[in-house]
Amino acid sequence: MMKSIKAASYPVHFQEKGYQEISSLISKNNYSTIFIMVDENTFELCYPKFIQNLETDKRIEVIEIESGEIHKNIETCIGVWNAITELGGDRKSVLITLGGGVITDLGGFVASCFKRGIDFINIPTTLLSMVDASVGGKTGVDLGVLKNQIGLFANPEMVLVDTDYLTTVSEREIKSGTAEIIKYGITYDRKLFNEIKNNKGLNINDLIFRSIEIKNEVVLQDPKEQNLRKILNFGHTLGHAIESFYLKSKDKENLTHGEAIAIGMVCESYMSEKLLGFPANKVSEIKEVILAIYKKTALLKKDFSAIMDLLKHDKKNVNGQVNFVLLKDFEDCQLDCKVPEELIIESMEFYNS
Amino acid sequence: MMKSIKAASYPVHFQEKGYQEISSLISKNNYSTIFIMVDENTFELCYPKFIQNLETDKRIEVIEIESGEIHKNIETCIGVWNAITELGGDRKSVLITLGGGVITDLGGFVASCFKRGIDFINIPTTLLSMVDASVGGKTGVDLGVLKNQIGLFANPEMVLVDTDYLTTVSEREIKSGTAEIIKYGITYDRKLFNEIKNNKGLNINDLIFRSIEIKNEVVLQDPKEQNLRKILNFGHTLGHAIESFYLKSKDKENLTHGEAIAIGMVCESYMSEKLLGFPANKVSEIKEVILAIYKKTALLKKDFSAIMDLLKHDKKNVNGQVNFVLLKDFEDCQLDCKVPEELIIESMEFYNS
Repeated sequence: MMKSIKAASYPVHFQEKGYQEISSLISKNNYSTIFIMVDENTFELCYPKFIQNLETDKRIEVIEIESGEIHKNIETCIGVWNAITELGGDRKSVLITLGGGVITDLGGFVASCFKRGIDFINIPTTLLSMVDASVGGKTGVDLGVLKNQIGLFANPEMVLVDTDYLTTVSEREIKSGTAEIIKYGITYDRKLFNEIKNNKGLNINDLIFRSIEIKNEVVLQDPKEQNLRKILNFGHTLGHAIESFYLKSKDKENLTHGEAIAIGMVCESYMSEKLLGFPANKVSEIKEVILAIYKKTALLKKDFSAIMDLLKHDKKNVNGQVNFVLLKDFEDCQLDCKVPEELIIESMEFYNS
Repeated sequence: MMKSIKAASYPVHFQEKGYQEISSLISKNNYSTIFIMVDENTFELCYPKFIQNLETDKRIEVIEIESGEIHKNIETCIGVWNAITELGGDRKSVLITLGGGVITDLGGFVASCFKRGIDFINIPTTLLSMVDASVGGKTGVDLGVLKNQIGLFANPEMVLVDTDYLTTVSEREIKSGTAEIIKYGITYDRKLFNEIKNNKGLNINDLIFRSIEIKNEVVLQDPKEQNLRKILNFGHTLGHAIESFYLKSKDKENLTHGEAIAIGMVCESYMSEKLLGFPANKVSEIKEVILAIYKKTALLKKDFSAIMDLLKHDKKNVNGQVNFVLLKDFEDCQLDCKVPEELIIESMEFYNS
């Protein structure tokens, strides 16, 4: 039995206990209508279990959006806002997000802006959204290919993590979430990284619990990402640019978020070696662990300049200067590092090598 | 010389002093870029004075949107977000809104959602935005014909009120703002109402200062509109529905916000008489003051049902029930009043009579 985690202003409940808690929260807050946001996959695979375990006599309305990062945009938000409006949503409505990171990120944003804010509850159904998106108060959508360009800091009333939902997602999606667990290991908990490296008797529930615990510890200390929280961006600066590049390249298959971040972590480890003296053997260790999980994506030389252009729109940039989080060591990050353009390109060549 | 008003987390500065304050705020916060949002009118008529009085060596970029309530929507926001992105906006950018309520409401929302929030500064240039929109932390845009359906509570870093800008707006726009001053008088300060009624030696600067003072007092006590702040919705429940109806009726000329609210105040005073015993002579007094300022708009019987439909989408509704703020007396409101549909219709007939 996993105990609950107390986040900023809301609890994270696990497994069966979560359903009791969600039912009593709904009853206590006396919501007028319960909107449940799903995509076609979670409606088919997760909604039946959820609705069977929810005890309420309130009106329930399901809002379905199309799955995929490509739909994580303002146009989808407008569709959801119109749907909630037509279904008579009011200020006492609650929005429950049931899905992966697209659903929880977009749903939290939609709820926070509807009539200047209604309550929302996150129920992540993918590993990525369990260990990352659903906790920490970031909501948002993409603007064109720029990830999470539009969004807010806004906390849910509750998060329910039921790892049973992981049986509904593909191996590739599980790996996508694993990249964030590796990140927590590298930046915050060497022991966690070693567990993944040794890959013996791993208990996914324990990994999830520990990841949420870490994210929560970091976010509580720095909710608005002024300093400490930036460590969670390790691998994400270059990773996001690579993810965006594949998203907008019509002739290339998209990378999952985790696949892109995994590449980003290898490259940024290499930058760390060159700029901060992060030991070369640890760079190799990280690269090996990652390449044992993710098949190598060939980064083409001719694509480097397009990736560099996308880097220039990273949310962490100030005055046109790209900011990286680099490693002095495991569990020891240096924030706001400037990296020469040549070294960024060199790091992608290192990944390829 | 008008003194400054201390609002929730930000100051409201008046006249020439405001320009010094804004210049030193920009310098203190070391913004990377200053975005100034205008429409074609304020760019021509207000921007020259503003830019002449702004002392800064930071990069300045002007973003122009089309004037008019019809453009206060998410599509315009997307255009502004794209413009800020293309102009290299980052988290240390600041957005200065220079215009009426459309600019300040939309601009505050755009800033609050860009990269999860950048600073903004409001410079209202119409009477309505000076006495209402620019203070109090409400931002938002319309969804279709539904006013402010999408938005946030978010505070600017500063508000600068320079009444010199009122020379740039039409008599009709001045009257639009006057409706909110009348509302403050009715719901909070009988003396202020009497001044407008007697209409002798009115000093617009004093009226503006007193209005902001009242709004600020109310908002400080109840920023999220849980109770007291609802008094500021007097006249707005039916008024918004009427405003929306004229906005979406292609064959009718739009009403200004103030013209619609003025009608709403007459009707809701009448409802107050019938439901709460608000004295009939005071209803007449309100109607007379309003009809002395605003020419009567004929509300057609055949339009009543469309107006009633729009009422059902009012943001204050819960469980499909329309909530009115009504008067027991001047300066004495009753919140969350349910009004029978027949009485709402009767009140519009009373306005017509």
